[in-house]
Amino acid sequence: MKLNDNIVALATPSGAGAIAVIRVSGPDAVKLVAPIFRAKSKKDLLDQPSHTLHLGNIIDGERIIDEVLISVFHGPKSYTGENTIEVSCHGSPYIQQEIIQLLIRRGCRSAEAGEFTLRAFLNGKMDLSQAEAVADLISSENAASHQMAMQQMRGGFSNEIQKLRQELLDFASLIELELDFAEEDVEFANRDEFKQLVSRIQNVLKKLIDSFAVGNVLKNGIPVAIVGEPNVGKSTLLNALLNEERAIVSEIAGTTRDTIEDEISIGGIGFRFIDTAGIRETEDVVESIGIKRTFEKISQAQVVIFLLDAEKFKVQGSRFRVEIEKIKNQFPQKPLIIVANKIDQSSESEIAELNVTLNSVEGSHYLPISAKSGTGVEELQQKLLQFVNTGELRNNNTIVTNSRHYNALLSALEEINKVQDGLNHNLSGDLLAIDIREALHYFGEITGEITNDDLLGNIFSNFCIGK
Amino acid sequence: MKLNDNIVALATPSGAGAIAVIRVSGPDAVKLVAPIFRAKSKKDLLDQPSHTLHLGNIIDGERIIDEVLISVFHGPKSYTGENTIEVSCHGSPYIQQEIIQLLIRRGCRSAEAGEFTLRAFLNGKMDLSQAEAVADLISSENAASHQMAMQQMRGGFSNEIQKLRQELLDFASLIELELDFAEEDVEFANRDEFKQLVSRIQNVLKKLIDSFAVGNVLKNGIPVAIVGEPNVGKSTLLNALLNEERAIVSEIAGTTRDTIEDEISIGGIGFRFIDTAGIRETEDVVESIGIKRTFEKISQAQVVIFLLDAEKFKVQGSRFRVEIEKIKNQFPQKPLIIVANKIDQSSESEIAELNVTLNSVEGSHYLPISAKSGTGVEELQQKLLQFVNTGELRNNNTIVTNSRHYNALLSALEEINKVQDGLNHNLSGDLLAIDIREALHYFGEITGEITNDDLLGNIFSNFCIGK
Repeated sequence: MKLNDNIVALATPSGAGAIAVIRVSGPDAVKLVAPIFRAKSKKDLLDQPSHTLHLGNIIDGERIIDEVLISVFHGPKSYTGENTIEVSCHGSPYIQQEIIQLLIRRGCRSAEAGEFTLRAFLNGKMDLSQAEAVADLISSENAASHQMAMQQMRGGFSNEIQKLRQELLDFASLIELELDFAEEDVEFANRDEFKQLVSRIQNVLKKLIDSFAVGNVLKNGIPVAIVGEPNVGKSTLLNALLNEERAIVSEIAGTTRDTIEDEISIGGIGFRFIDTAGIRETEDVVESIGIKRTFEKISQAQVVIFLLDAEKFKVQGSRFRVEIEKIKNQFPQKPLIIVANKIDQSSESEIAELNVTLNSVEGSHYLPISAKSGTGVEELQQKLLQFVNTGELRNNNTIVTNSRHYNALLSALEEINKVQDGLNHNLSGDLLAIDIREALHYFGEITGEITNDDLLGNIFSNFCIGK
Repeated sequence: MKLNDNIVALATPSGAGAIAVIRVSGPDAVKLVAPIFRAKSKKDLLDQPSHTLHLGNIIDGERIIDEVLISVFHGPKSYTGENTIEVSCHGSPYIQQEIIQLLIRRGCRSAEAGEFTLRAFLNGKMDLSQAEAVADLISSENAASHQMAMQQMRGGFSNEIQKLRQELLDFASLIELELDFAEEDVEFANRDEFKQLVSRIQNVLKKLIDSFAVGNVLKNGIPVAIVGEPNVGKSTLLNALLNEERAIVSEIAGTTRDTIEDEISIGGIGFRFIDTAGIRETEDVVESIGIKRTFEKISQAQVVIFLLDAEKFKVQGSRFRVEIEKIKNQFPQKPLIIVANKIDQSSESEIAELNVTLNSVEGSHYLPISAKSGTGVEELQQKLLQFVNTGELRNNNTIVTNSRHYNALLSALEEINKVQDGLNHNLSGDLLAIDIREALHYFGEITGEITNDDLLGNIFSNFCIGK
């Protein structure tokens, strides 16, 4: 890992905008930029204090490339911990490229994905789990994923892990010390205190491991399958859900061409709505493939919405009942919400009758709505939020969202369990020490005290360039 | 035009990136941001000097939205001339929106397109033509358009116009003064000197007006029609031209579905290559529509490349000769380059024969190339550059690129010509004064000394939000 060179990259999204920011980091960042910058004030960039801004021109010989604003940061008081220059230029892709190319000709190297944050980690500005949280923060799309990333970036559970690791390390040292006095049969490490620590560590690990299920779902959005025939009002419903709150919608191309996923933020939680073709009984081969796909989609979802047309239900009620029963039989544990849409077209007595019929369907929840007028849409949102275990999030509990951390925690727990077994069977210190070392290893992997180039490469390659 | 409110907008391109910059400008910019910013140093943002950077958290009550870097600018030493804060946050669209919404709740207003630059103009930080150059600079895609925008932003011809306007204004004052002494028949304004000034203004205006033809072409790219049959190697040629130099390619949807324009930068000049269907003689109705379109495309182009397959020419030479003659007859003034492609598949003697035949086609230029191997591609680039009048650009002459300026210059010239006529016919001062006022008006329109809300609205609505 070379850190004596200087890296450059565009830090803002590519494309045209009002401004763009180009970041240079390394021991010579200021020295490299100074000769190609002519300050309006005529001041020399080399003499400027950290955390100051300077207006001037980026020049290539006598040619002016752009009028820019330069930010000066002296290491270690910078994001990377190194000397850093940020060039805020006009947002033309041509100008961005000209400036970056000029810096490369002057001796900078094009930064790799995540390399600025990697340097921040290597220079001790943050631990590894904090560095990972930076990428999560950038990709956060709703309040829940944002809060989790922010918590992790601010230390989160890695502080806790680090503390436990230190206590474990202290015991390990004592036990290994005993080995030096093996013939005297002394116990420096109080076995009762050690058992207590191990049990405490087990509890913390279990709690963190359990939180991953919640964290994973919150991070990636809760999948909700919408089962319904064409024209039942699926897109109207999605728009109605969307309009209740300013939210970010993205279209994710589904695994098959005919499914589209819409992500909608409800109460700060991301829900991924998966459109399905419905499950109407048919002899048509093409349609029966559609039904198979619908069941696949339902199996991937955490919640199922069975959306039906209230008008149609009046005449085809028995068919819908059969379809609902099929879903319930196939997925007895999955929360099912029966939603009768288009009630704005029904009379009050018709709605009352519908309510009696559909409320009596066991093992399901029922809601009459009009996606068009908005009636019942808020109730549906509340119902969806009920199925999400957001208690842990609300209570500011630590939540694990990163599968790398999850796996390291699982491995650490396994080793700690072995240590406990060993303690219970009065295993000798030298054997205990091996399992303790293993557990320490996995703890260290989370915070980055133990790393290797492969691991780092893996983590930072998922970052965007310029971060 | 209200300037006592505070505006906020995202200044970097939308979408996810490493960082994003949110800009706040207005009298209370610092006061609005200070309460939602908690500096790592615990310092109060209100006490910080201009042009300094501060690390800390953006907070909404106790909730941390992001760790950010704040740039402080005190008016008039800022882009807009007002107090300005730039918030450099993590590049998540969610975070960007949260911060902007928070600022709006605290009293900011969402900035309209170009409003920061509009304020810079209204606060006297730049004249109108400089403000317009900012938008040109952001959209510049090659060295030529970049250089022209940069020249205009740094003052360009608006300094010259302003100087001439002042001289004209002085004369106008003297002439209007004469009107007060009409009965005494005095001439405060020396008519000979005035004639000289008018003639000088005419020369400047004519030069600027003439430069627009070059400027317009350089700004929008030089249209080159490629006439050639399918499989003659059009896309290979475009790729070969592209590979000679790092360039920006964009696909612009043509006016008809079957034409695609590729913009390629050669020697810093943008060329728009317009693919055509060829003009092979046919009785097929569909193809004859294609031929009509090909001729339309050629008429819009500045240069025509007739691309033929060297192998095919050996057997169908006369057909190609007919097609070439057709183009020459229809467009005798248009530069025509005959390019024989795929010469890598011909023997040396075959190439020699081809050269003799095609070099003898009068009124055209001939080049043998292999788009695949790259032979002759550089020569083709040089040939294309020959047809561009880049002399004015190279000599750093002032070039008008903006059609609004062009129209104002045309109108100013018309009025100046009237003034000259009047002078030559010894027109009375009161009549002269009217035409001079008109000319002054058009000069003022360019630099923005004379504006109205419609004009400003028109200009700045073409900007992106955040600039």
